[in-house]
Amino acid sequence: MRPLLVSRSALRSATRASSSRLLPLCQAARFYSAKAGDLDASKLSITKTTSPKALSKAEDLVFGREFTDHMLTIEWTKEDGWKDPKITPYQNLSLDPATCVFHYAFECFEGMKAYKDKQGQVRLFRPEKNMARLNKSSARIALPTFEPKSLIELISKFAQLDSRFIPDKRGYSMYLRPTMIGTQKTLGVGPPGSALLYVIASPVGPYYPTGFKAISLEATDYAVRAWPGGVGDKKLGANYAPCILPQLQAASRGFQQNLWLFGEEEYVTEVGTMNMFVAIKNKETGQKELLTAPLDGTILEGVTRDSVLSLARERLVPQGWKVDERKYTMKELSEASQEGRLLEAFGAGTAAIVSPIRSISWKGDLVDCGLAKHEESGEIALQMKEWMEAIQYGDEEHEWSFVTSS
Amino acid sequence: MRPLLVSRSALRSATRASSSRLLPLCQAARFYSAKAGDLDASKLSITKTTSPKALSKAEDLVFGREFTDHMLTIEWTKEDGWKDPKITPYQNLSLDPATCVFHYAFECFEGMKAYKDKQGQVRLFRPEKNMARLNKSSARIALPTFEPKSLIELISKFAQLDSRFIPDKRGYSMYLRPTMIGTQKTLGVGPPGSALLYVIASPVGPYYPTGFKAISLEATDYAVRAWPGGVGDKKLGANYAPCILPQLQAASRGFQQNLWLFGEEEYVTEVGTMNMFVAIKNKETGQKELLTAPLDGTILEGVTRDSVLSLARERLVPQGWKVDERKYTMKELSEASQEGRLLEAFGAGTAAIVSPIRSISWKGDLVDCGLAKHEESGEIALQMKEWMEAIQYGDEEHEWSFVTSS
Repeated sequence: MRPLLVSRSALRSATRASSSRLLPLCQAARFYSAKAGDLDASKLSITKTTSPKALSKAEDLVFGREFTDHMLTIEWTKEDGWKDPKITPYQNLSLDPATCVFHYAFECFEGMKAYKDKQGQVRLFRPEKNMARLNKSSARIALPTFEPKSLIELISKFAQLDSRFIPDKRGYSMYLRPTMIGTQKTLGVGPPGSALLYVIASPVGPYYPTGFKAISLEATDYAVRAWPGGVGDKKLGANYAPCILPQLQAASRGFQQNLWLFGEEEYVTEVGTMNMFVAIKNKETGQKELLTAPLDGTILEGVTRDSVLSLARERLVPQGWKVDERKYTMKELSEASQEGRLLEAFGAGTAAIVSPIRSISWKGDLVDCGLAKHEESGEIALQMKEWMEAIQYGDEEHEWSFVTSS
Repeated sequence: MRPLLVSRSALRSATRASSSRLLPLCQAARFYSAKAGDLDASKLSITKTTSPKALSKAEDLVFGREFTDHMLTIEWTKEDGWKDPKITPYQNLSLDPATCVFHYAFECFEGMKAYKDKQGQVRLFRPEKNMARLNKSSARIALPTFEPKSLIELISKFAQLDSRFIPDKRGYSMYLRPTMIGTQKTLGVGPPGSALLYVIASPVGPYYPTGFKAISLEATDYAVRAWPGGVGDKKLGANYAPCILPQLQAASRGFQQNLWLFGEEEYVTEVGTMNMFVAIKNKETGQKELLTAPLDGTILEGVTRDSVLSLARERLVPQGWKVDERKYTMKELSEASQEGRLLEAFGAGTAAIVSPIRSISWKGDLVDCGLAKHEESGEIALQMKEWMEAIQYGDEEHEWSFVTSS
C-alpha cells in the first residue's frame, strides 16, 4: 500500500484555513449570549442524599474509582437552552440505546481539582481555564456552550457540599470531572438537539504517594494521536480511546507511556495524556532552556502546561533560563542526551502536576533524560511541583487560586 | 502559527509500521479463540414485550428515529468473557456517570439492513462483512472481539422476532445498529474491563422516496477527517462528532455534504459518511474508468463500496469499463469535468446504496459532475442501485443475501 502524501504547504494552508474559517464560524454558531436559556446558577436546586457514603482511608484512594455523595447535572435542549441546574444524589444516567453519545462520540470533558487549605477552605485552581477549554471543545462538536462564571459558581457549591470527601493532607484533593454529552436519541448524524452537562467528583491521593518515581517512555511513530485540521487540541472523548492500544503495546515492552512523535522530522508532541517539557543546554551558547511544543492545533492546551510556562517565565528567567514554546525533534533530544546537555524531561498535567522522565526508547536506543541512577526527579520538575502546590493549597496567596463559597 | 511538517517518507514508515506492528499485536491481544467466555448464541434468552408498539405508516418513517419492540444485549467482562445473550423489550441503558463510554469514546458500531423478500423471508446483506469490520473497530480501541457467526445468528433471531416492523415494499427495510461500548465505571484511562454489545433496529424508508435527488458537495480542506496512523478506517464513534461542524458549515453555504480532501495534492477521499466513486473517460485512451480511493488506512472499508467494486468488475468490465482503486485528485476531476470527460460521481453507503452528485464546490468554482439539468442520476449509479436491490430483496439469488431463520 502506498502512503498518503502530505506536504508542508498543504498543512500550512490547512492550519491557516482552520483558524480563519472553522473557528470563527463555530464560535458564531453556538457561543453563548446572555438571553433566555442561559445557564443560571441562581436556579440551582439541591436534593441531598439520605444515605451518605462512608469515607475511605485516604491512603486507599485510587484515581477516579470512588465518587462523592452527589453530582451536578444541567440539561440543555435546542428549543429551551439550559434548564435549571440540579445537585442530586450520585446516580446512574438512564439513556435510550439510540442516544448519540453512544454512537458518534458527542462527548467532551475537563479535569480539575478542589483542594483544602490550612483554614479548611475549599480552593479551585484556575477554573476559568477549564471553563474556556470546555466551551471550545463543546463548540467543536456542535454541543452547546455556557456562561463560564455560572458553571464555576455551581461547581463551587457542589465542591462545598461534598467537601468532607477532600482529605486535608498535602497531595490529596478532590478530582472534578465536568462532562458534556449529546443526548439526542436518533441515529441520524447531525448536531445534537439535546445535551447533558454533568459534574462528578472523586477524592484522590497524590500521584506519587511515596515520592516521585521517574517513568520511561516509548517514542511512538506508528500511531498518530493528532493531525493539523483534526481535533487533537480539544479535550474530546474521541482523542482517548484510540490511544489505549499503543499504550498497551508500549507497556508490553516495559514503557509506562507513549511519547507521541509527529512527521518525518519526528517532532516531540505529547507524552501519554500529558504535555511534554524538556530542559536542555543550548549547544552553541550553553544557555539553559526549558522547551515545550507550541499550540499549533495538535497539542492539548494544558492548564498545567500554561502554569508551568508562566512560573518558569516569572521565576526561572531571572535565574538565567530561557523559556521557549517551539518545535523540537527526537533527534535534537538524543544529541543533547549524548552530549550531556539534556538536563531533565517531564510530563505536565492535572493528575500528577509533573511526571519526571528517566528515559525514552527511540529507534532501538534508550535516550537518557539526565537523571542520575538514584534520582527520581530533576530540579525543575521538583521546583514546579512545590511552586504549584503552594498556590493550589493556598500556602501562597495567588490569583490562580479560587476560594469557593457555598 | 507554523504548521506541522509531514513528509512522504514519514508517512510511508508510519503506514508500514502500523501494518507490521500495531495490527498483529491488536489481533493477538483480544481476537477471540474458542473457549469459555465466547459468545454463545445457543444461550440466548428472550423476554418479549408486553406492550407491542403500533406500526407507523411506512411513508412517515424517518431514518433512525423509531425503534422496534426489542433489543439484543450481551455483556462482557474481562474476567468472564461474553455472558449469555438476551433479547429484551427495548429499554434505556442505566449507566454510572463515570462509565468510560461517556469520557473516552470507547464505542464503535455497524450499520446493516434486514430486507423482506416476496416470500416474506427476512434477509441480511453480507452480514459477515459487518461482523469482520466490527471486530476490527472494537480491537482497535481495546474492546472485546467475538465469534462472527454467533452474532449473525443472534441478529437473525432478533430480526425475525421484530420482522413485523419491516415494510414489505421495495426500498424499505429495517436498519440494524450493532453497537459496542466500554462500560467500566472508573476515570483512569486504560482498556475497559467490561463492555456491552447491543443491537437495536429501526424501520426505514427509501433514502430517496420520490426518486434520486442529486446532491452538491463542498470540497473540504480546512478540516481533516482521517490521517495515516489514525483510526479513519475504523467505524468508531470518534470519527463522527468532529465532522458535524464542517457539515453545518457546508450546509450554510448551500452544500449537502463535505467532500473530504487530503494533503497538498488534494486527494479525494470520502463524501460525508459515504465512500466516493467517479466515472471518467481517460484523457489519453478514452477508456471509461470507474474510480474510488484505495483502502490505505484513511478510508472506511464500506460494505457497499466493496459490493459496487465487485459488481463493476463482474458486470461493467465485460462492457468495456476499467475499474480502479487508486488515488485521484480534485484537480483531476476538475480537468475531466472541463473537458467533458467526467461522466458521473456518486457516494456509496448502506443508507442510500448510491447517492448521485451534481456538483462540487472547489476553490470558488463549481465542478460539474456530468448530469444534465433534468437528470438526478447517472447511468452507473442507477444501474448499481438496481443490481444491489435485486440481490438485497432476493429477486436475484446471490451468495451476498443471507436468509435468516428464527
